[in-house]
Amino acid sequence: MKKHNFSAGPSILPDTVMQQAAEAILNFNNSNLSIIEISHRSSDFMQVITKAKELVLELAELNSDEYEVLFQHGGASTQFIMTAYNLLPIDGKAGFIDTGTWSSKAIKETKIFGNVETIASSKDQGYKYIPKDFSVPNDLAYLHVTSNNTIYGTQYKDFPVTDLPLVADMSSDIFSKKLDFSKFDVIYAGAQKNIGASGTTLVIIKKSLLGKTGRTIPSMMNYEVQIDKGSMFNTPSVFSIYVSMLYLQWLKDKGGLEAIEKLNEAKAKILYDEIDRNPNFVGYANKEDRSLMNVTFNLTDESKKERFDQLAAEAGVHAIKGHRSVGGYRASIYNAMPIESVQVLVDVMKAL
Amino acid sequence: MKKHNFSAGPSILPDTVMQQAAEAILNFNNSNLSIIEISHRSSDFMQVITKAKELVLELAELNSDEYEVLFQHGGASTQFIMTAYNLLPIDGKAGFIDTGTWSSKAIKETKIFGNVETIASSKDQGYKYIPKDFSVPNDLAYLHVTSNNTIYGTQYKDFPVTDLPLVADMSSDIFSKKLDFSKFDVIYAGAQKNIGASGTTLVIIKKSLLGKTGRTIPSMMNYEVQIDKGSMFNTPSVFSIYVSMLYLQWLKDKGGLEAIEKLNEAKAKILYDEIDRNPNFVGYANKEDRSLMNVTFNLTDESKKERFDQLAAEAGVHAIKGHRSVGGYRASIYNAMPIESVQVLVDVMKAL
Repeated sequence: MKKHNFSAGPSILPDTVMQQAAEAILNFNNSNLSIIEISHRSSDFMQVITKAKELVLELAELNSDEYEVLFQHGGASTQFIMTAYNLLPIDGKAGFIDTGTWSSKAIKETKIFGNVETIASSKDQGYKYIPKDFSVPNDLAYLHVTSNNTIYGTQYKDFPVTDLPLVADMSSDIFSKKLDFSKFDVIYAGAQKNIGASGTTLVIIKKSLLGKTGRTIPSMMNYEVQIDKGSMFNTPSVFSIYVSMLYLQWLKDKGGLEAIEKLNEAKAKILYDEIDRNPNFVGYANKEDRSLMNVTFNLTDESKKERFDQLAAEAGVHAIKGHRSVGGYRASIYNAMPIESVQVLVDVMKAL
Repeated sequence: MKKHNFSAGPSILPDTVMQQAAEAILNFNNSNLSIIEISHRSSDFMQVITKAKELVLELAELNSDEYEVLFQHGGASTQFIMTAYNLLPIDGKAGFIDTGTWSSKAIKETKIFGNVETIASSKDQGYKYIPKDFSVPNDLAYLHVTSNNTIYGTQYKDFPVTDLPLVADMSSDIFSKKLDFSKFDVIYAGAQKNIGASGTTLVIIKKSLLGKTGRTIPSMMNYEVQIDKGSMFNTPSVFSIYVSMLYLQWLKDKGGLEAIEKLNEAKAKILYDEIDRNPNFVGYANKEDRSLMNVTFNLTDESKKERFDQLAAEAGVHAIKGHRSVGGYRASIYNAMPIESVQVLVDVMKAL
């Protein structure tokens, strides 16, 4: 049976990316070698990582003179450490907007390295909203935001306006819509939601920001070293970077961020419309802050859970269970999710 | 044309592993979902990582009461940081045997965290040998060795005998032969040479060693956190761990470490015998310290280089160029390399 994969991450990838990835495992570029057995310093792989970096800058409309692209190990959680090491001076202070679990984790890890100020938080209402009324002190080394909150289903529509360096964890909505990426100084994102498979983490850095913390930084955690070595201080995650290159190419071929934004808006609309229309369901996040990526909702009558789960399973709807920390349901409708699959879920909701 | 892949890493994997990996990209466990699109917390993937850990303990003949198995992000280079954070007390001292580039890098990174003493080094002779005549001070927090040196082609036959905790970077010879693994307290190894694809790093830790450094350790760098979360503090490198599970299963099915050791010895023997017999070649490493994994050699007459390279290419021999830091040739003959491919290389050497 055809599955409709709403998994929050790792998550659905485009069919053509899967096909190309499977072929490359057996025979990459007609070399009679697998993508997973070739040297990361071979010209074949150098072309892959170079292409992936070019696609990132092209999709983000950023200039390679100003910005550097890295594909790092360790996920966004390792970026909590790297941003602190590379951007937070020993006596400096970092500012955070706390919009949920991932912001909170970023705050906790950054505190190990220095002073942290939480400028605003939506914890008071179970992270159902994005804080808006706050002022940003100007004595901060940088301001950190989490652009989309996978667990609660909230997403920034407008980012804080500030002269401070702006650092964004975009793990769950990177390249899902048009954005003025030049407003950001560091962007990082685990690949496994919108641009690939798990195992690699995209980092986009404004180069002029680096080398100013006065810290001695271990090589693997040092953006300057990683830039100097082209993300190859050590063996990179070859297969995951290859999959990201394919995914980014798919995004470009699809019409880029403008086209994917329209599709993502259409997908979210039919799902939120059904949640708002259907008395069996209620949305979790405040309407104005609803995420285009993670649609969170609850049953109004918990006794219908067994029936709903059964209908969903029968329709091939996969992985809509909410995060263990909030319960309910969550449909993740990342870039690769076809609108037809969202319609299948909507039909199941209608049938309840 | 069939390729014989002597790449130093990423490197050759068993054919059956490639086949299974390619199938799992398209349809994993008959789920109609890809291995790269399922949640790392799904029961399907939990079975994969649990099986991989069990296979590690089984092959190493280690007890799960005493030892913990992790599959980490970041390669061996990140283990340089993690071993320091987790094993080196703030006022303590770590001891290293310097047998080449990777030992030197480990030393350099550990110095960022504390005191380091280099007990012995073979740098004086271009790392052609493994130091043997040294005494280990007993005021060290631990002693670190690099079991096999990919670049120079040397390998420990006997490890230093010490009562100190023994930490080993086994990236280039893990599970290539029988070993009393219980003599080690921490073993780490990037997967991409002997047990998988790049993107994941095996760590085996004696649990009783942890929690004693007095350091505040960022979560991603903290062995205790990683153990507590079962290598899933964040999204692990799903595909790479799956490939390692397949590879470890292949090793077991092949007869385990005793069987692979015999095969690896036979492969190395025919190659070293040819190097010693053929006046066109000379080995790089001292005979008594020669690696079973990386066979390093040079031409005695550099004018024959073009002809040798051409003969090798015509026979499908891939990636025998020596590391850029030492030149010459290096044939990496890891676990998955069939003896037939080594014979092809030997035939090319004979034909020169």
